[in-house]
Amino acid sequence: MQREKIIAVVGLGLIGGSLAAALRGFEDYTVVGVVRRQETADYAVSHEVCDRVTLDPMEVLPEADVVWLCMNPQGIVDYMARYRDVFRAGALVTDVGGIKTAIMEGAGVLPETVDFIGCHPMAGTEFSGIEHSFPTMFQRAHFILTPRPSSTPEHIALMRRVSAYIGCSDVVTTTPERHDAIIAYTSQLMHIIAVSVCDDEELFQCRGFEGGSFRDCTRVAALDVDLWTQLFSMNAPALTREIDRLVQNLSAYRDAIAGGDVQALSDKLTWSANRKRQMNLPGPGQIML
Amino acid sequence: MQREKIIAVVGLGLIGGSLAAALRGFEDYTVVGVVRRQETADYAVSHEVCDRVTLDPMEVLPEADVVWLCMNPQGIVDYMARYRDVFRAGALVTDVGGIKTAIMEGAGVLPETVDFIGCHPMAGTEFSGIEHSFPTMFQRAHFILTPRPSSTPEHIALMRRVSAYIGCSDVVTTTPERHDAIIAYTSQLMHIIAVSVCDDEELFQCRGFEGGSFRDCTRVAALDVDLWTQLFSMNAPALTREIDRLVQNLSAYRDAIAGGDVQALSDKLTWSANRKRQMNLPGPGQIML
Repeated sequence: MQREKIIAVVGLGLIGGSLAAALRGFEDYTVVGVVRRQETADYAVSHEVCDRVTLDPMEVLPEADVVWLCMNPQGIVDYMARYRDVFRAGALVTDVGGIKTAIMEGAGVLPETVDFIGCHPMAGTEFSGIEHSFPTMFQRAHFILTPRPSSTPEHIALMRRVSAYIGCSDVVTTTPERHDAIIAYTSQLMHIIAVSVCDDEELFQCRGFEGGSFRDCTRVAALDVDLWTQLFSMNAPALTREIDRLVQNLSAYRDAIAGGDVQALSDKLTWSANRKRQMNLPGPGQIML
Repeated sequence: MQREKIIAVVGLGLIGGSLAAALRGFEDYTVVGVVRRQETADYAVSHEVCDRVTLDPMEVLPEADVVWLCMNPQGIVDYMARYRDVFRAGALVTDVGGIKTAIMEGAGVLPETVDFIGCHPMAGTEFSGIEHSFPTMFQRAHFILTPRPSSTPEHIALMRRVSAYIGCSDVVTTTPERHDAIIAYTSQLMHIIAVSVCDDEELFQCRGFEGGSFRDCTRVAALDVDLWTQLFSMNAPALTREIDRLVQNLSAYRDAIAGGDVQALSDKLTWSANRKRQMNLPGPGQIML
């Protein structure tokens, strides 16, 4: 009889719960959720989030072919240190963290017999917890990988098949340093913008005057504070650089508007709007302004 | 035989086309589109955007009970000046402009026999043109009115019925000055953010790393340059004030992140996230980060 092949998803929150549900039926793997709280286990069972669920990591980690760590960045680093000697020889450990340098450094504690590939599926919502998870979360999302030089081609190929199975649009392979530098702009800065907009003293006086652009821009402001405190702190130099650059670009618009030269403002807007059109991002086609 | 009651929608672009289509069947009114280009007229006829369409304003303006001006702000002001003596006595002239002070001032040219109520339905998309119009555009949008002191209760009541008919969530009545001050924050600033983010020198290097927050925040950057040049220019003092306030709030986050005090950053994020939750805007529930 063939040995059961196992993907252990550790942490069934918003991302882990969605990932486990999306992974179900992947090749001949059994998807086992590893959780800390009984109520999360109960929810996972009643909603069929995974094939099995356990509260005891020792029950599944020694058998798992893939261990997918779906906690906060610091939680991921701590977990690898704590269970470094428990992972199966030849196993692949991977994660979902929104920063990669600190996590890849943390993965240095793993024994040589355990492979590690950093992973960041660019998906999520502004909510948290398994009750907000859904299996289609990763559809059309980028699937970013930061392998180690020693990562095996078999494990990289496995992650590519997973990416396709859960519906991601493409696999982007990069270094942890480049990931963190770019993500400071494409993700972290968007969250800093959202909270900064909501810090405006007149926020609550503006009810009744907001349209789609306001809802979209501030959507992610109701963020998971513990998670984002870690993400921002662990990427502080890159993020502060990005905020500085945004402030410069905002100030240039401020000066163009205050200056009163309508043609100059029109030229500037033409330039920016063309950049956006050239970027041509896929996305919801028609949402309210 | 009873006289035909007419709502003339002048300008069948993204907003005018959507409005005309949404208005069809409203009480016993006939919706007549007034356009400048034959191809817009052809599109309106073939897609049944309105009940009738004409290229000649003189054919419909003298008979119209309501004239709804759906052009750029300067176009609205110019149109009122040009056709001031053509509007029917007792008619209501209204508009859809995203700024109200300049338009209300422009309405000063109308004879006393013509009523004017400023209107700004808080809806739209980042596209333009009748081919992107759709009748459900106004569903769940705020419907903002800036009546004149002399506006008749009958006309205000009519606008309220229209608002309900086209699916708006509520009617917000305010002064043009307050409208423009708040809209500088809730709408114009969101567009300045979007273009400023796209001005980042590394925009094109970031393909493959963007998620929902980036798509949402930059969605409106591909804007209608002529329209937004006018909107920004005609509201420059309020808008520059808002940009300054945002830069202050961004800088406070920048300092909190650069300072390295994780607890202080966490406290600050908690404060902002709670403001957002308290704001509790309706909107799409689950979109990708």
